[in-house]
Amino acid sequence: MRLVVLGGVAAGTKAASRARRLDPEMEITVYQDEPEPSISECGLPYLLSGVVEERGRLVARTPEKFAEKGVEVLLRHRVEKIDVAEKTLSVLNLNTGETFEDAYDRLVIATGARAVLPPIPGAGLEGVFKLRFLTDTDEIGRYIEERSPTKATIVGGGYIGLEVAENLCRLGMEVSLIEGEDRVALAYGPEVSERVEAELEANGVGVYTGEKVDEFTGERRVGGVKFGGKELETNLVIVGVGITPNTELAAVAGVEIGATGAILVDRHMRASVPDLWAAGDCVETTNLVSGRPAWVPLGDTANQMGRVAGTNAATGQETLEFPGILGTGIFKVFDLGVGKTGLSEKEAEDAGFEVVSAGLEAYDRAAYYPGARRVFLKLIADRATGRLLGAEAAGSGADKLTDVCAAALWGKLSYPDLVNIDLAYAPPYGPALSPVIQAATILSGKFDRAREGIRASE
Amino acid sequence: MRLVVLGGVAAGTKAASRARRLDPEMEITVYQDEPEPSISECGLPYLLSGVVEERGRLVARTPEKFAEKGVEVLLRHRVEKIDVAEKTLSVLNLNTGETFEDAYDRLVIATGARAVLPPIPGAGLEGVFKLRFLTDTDEIGRYIEERSPTKATIVGGGYIGLEVAENLCRLGMEVSLIEGEDRVALAYGPEVSERVEAELEANGVGVYTGEKVDEFTGERRVGGVKFGGKELETNLVIVGVGITPNTELAAVAGVEIGATGAILVDRHMRASVPDLWAAGDCVETTNLVSGRPAWVPLGDTANQMGRVAGTNAATGQETLEFPGILGTGIFKVFDLGVGKTGLSEKEAEDAGFEVVSAGLEAYDRAAYYPGARRVFLKLIADRATGRLLGAEAAGSGADKLTDVCAAALWGKLSYPDLVNIDLAYAPPYGPALSPVIQAATILSGKFDRAREGIRASE
Repeated sequence: MRLVVLGGVAAGTKAASRARRLDPEMEITVYQDEPEPSISECGLPYLLSGVVEERGRLVARTPEKFAEKGVEVLLRHRVEKIDVAEKTLSVLNLNTGETFEDAYDRLVIATGARAVLPPIPGAGLEGVFKLRFLTDTDEIGRYIEERSPTKATIVGGGYIGLEVAENLCRLGMEVSLIEGEDRVALAYGPEVSERVEAELEANGVGVYTGEKVDEFTGERRVGGVKFGGKELETNLVIVGVGITPNTELAAVAGVEIGATGAILVDRHMRASVPDLWAAGDCVETTNLVSGRPAWVPLGDTANQMGRVAGTNAATGQETLEFPGILGTGIFKVFDLGVGKTGLSEKEAEDAGFEVVSAGLEAYDRAAYYPGARRVFLKLIADRATGRLLGAEAAGSGADKLTDVCAAALWGKLSYPDLVNIDLAYAPPYGPALSPVIQAATILSGKFDRAREGIRASE
Repeated sequence: MRLVVLGGVAAGTKAASRARRLDPEMEITVYQDEPEPSISECGLPYLLSGVVEERGRLVARTPEKFAEKGVEVLLRHRVEKIDVAEKTLSVLNLNTGETFEDAYDRLVIATGARAVLPPIPGAGLEGVFKLRFLTDTDEIGRYIEERSPTKATIVGGGYIGLEVAENLCRLGMEVSLIEGEDRVALAYGPEVSERVEAELEANGVGVYTGEKVDEFTGERRVGGVKFGGKELETNLVIVGVGITPNTELAAVAGVEIGATGAILVDRHMRASVPDLWAAGDCVETTNLVSGRPAWVPLGDTANQMGRVAGTNAATGQETLEFPGILGTGIFKVFDLGVGKTGLSEKEAEDAGFEVVSAGLEAYDRAAYYPGARRVFLKLIADRATGRLLGAEAAGSGADKLTDVCAAALWGKLSYPDLVNIDLAYAPPYGPALSPVIQAATILSGKFDRAREGIRASE
């Protein structure tokens, strides 16, 4: 029995390792375009600035380590064609330029996603980069070393753009961030966007929202960026306007693509053709709050999906299920942690819910305990049923509040469930009543008011 | 309509405030033995050491503030008798020594709990204290200022003893801790106790477990403590061997007491006699994991119970419910955070479950991210059904893991639910797979192994 895995980052390596554990006899090969497997891509912004000092720390496992476990990992090998009827592959060895045929009994597609580069004039100039792979970081690092850029421009105010802004500031650059929409961190509500923009500005980042880049200027190398009738001097540009799933190979092979543009799989990570599973940033899953198809490419989810795909590919059965996601995410920008789970108010409205929400500023520990810092929390609920639909947090301990709310969503809790939830309290770790409880209590007041005409409780 | 509340700490003041909000016409009086109301008792150990600098910071609200809201708070007034048939009270004014009669339409009992002082010879010596009220901290503070003790002994290795140990160390004292059982932090499993003892010892605290104190020695003032055939020199002793609910007043009045020795209430915090509610450290509730009566006196729970009791006392109806608790708790000892929710392995076995558990050491962020620190997490599940029964965490981010597991317990999740739970990941905030997911995956492997004879997954 031969298992081939396409892609060697989170989902692919997890699937391969898992299959190996379950079936010591299986022949397993992983093909990977990039020159290193098993990279922690989420760590790249921190490698750029030297917060993570050693490049090797981001390589979770080398091909040699995989070989010891009996998993063949072939780097710089690009699968160019899948024949799902014959169960064969056409593979290009990027080192030699040679193409060869391979065959599989079972296939896992984990081809991930790639950065989108919008067609902006001058995007091909030296000094204009995207940041998705370790090789991108290598290139940017080389450019920084050779050219010592002092003025950097980030295009895009999402996770990657915000993380990169912080890390380029750490290198002493003057950083500007340009976002096409009217605020950064669009997956969140406006209260969070305001806090993120304030944090950027407090750290000297020039924030330009509602601005489309017209052109990158320069001869061979980038020297400026034009937008909204003005031109900023810049000698390094990082474009982080989004990513797109790598589905072309699968689509051409006849594998069904879902509504989001990513590969369609069932709860067992099985794709639409026999003996083929898919996992990670290239697949579509279900948002468990809205019940709708969702494509939220994140490393932890890829890992979990890879485990399910690898297990089922090893057993050939429906051994494990991946139920779907909540859309939980988190990022750090300077000293501000920002997390969300479930739907934002806008996402909930778009999904057809009538929404009620409660936001508050609280402390991360007892107000009298030294070092108490602020955190914003917003709970979003369904007005009709009281069901919790989402939560957003920004500030100290945002990660904790996000995860508590994620667990609450996972358990399908409603706001009244959260009013009396038994969370851990001691002065160094929170206020007597967790911000989650406080926000649920405010929501409760709003519901009471609506229902019974009594005033909000607190 | 006249509401009287007995006790003015967390539950009592919350009940009074809540009733006032809901019913602006109600006449509300709070009687409180102690000279200050609305104290954050959990902050007392930190006041002792000066970590919390201002005593006033622990007083959430003064009687004047309550008066502005139309709540009369009478301090140093002890209710000595309740006549539940006549709905009258006999009140001793501790300032004047006079006793007077009062009457109520509705009554909330929130008389809290008091420290237990075991009958150890010499317990009456000067320099031997308990720590429960602000007045205790005042007395200890005065003694420290006057006598400059250099060698302190803590009796009892529970929350209070451990917190006080840290805080006396901060004052430069040589601290010893004596625990009668064979390990400290008995509410936890042995892995956690070991970590707590190691943390104490690393910070210079002498830890003596399995030792009963025979005698405190000294003339007028304490000079030593005898146990296990030896004598330690000591000039300050703090006894923290437990607390007991203040139920005598209620019991004498004919209010039913529960199996745990605390006041029996229903889900509406209503006691066994008409027009009488009770809340906080003096009442019994239900452990929602074991389904058994539980008495877990903690400030956050008291607050939540007070809200329910105050609401229902105001409306006279069954407006709100308090469902019960999980037994969630947390404490800090030096740099170690230690939390739990639900049942420990032993508690689960005592409750009749056949238990399976998984413990692991993980990092609090991506291993390559600077400052990564260790955290221990243990999940406890029911072997028969897979249902999560409890969790314990010790180390960096223990508060987060505890609360996530508390939310999972609140949603009645089972271990397979946690394998794919969508928690927030970014390198500064956790490993790619949360320790909760890792531990659930280990549990999953144990179940698989038991069921299908395949080996543990990871």
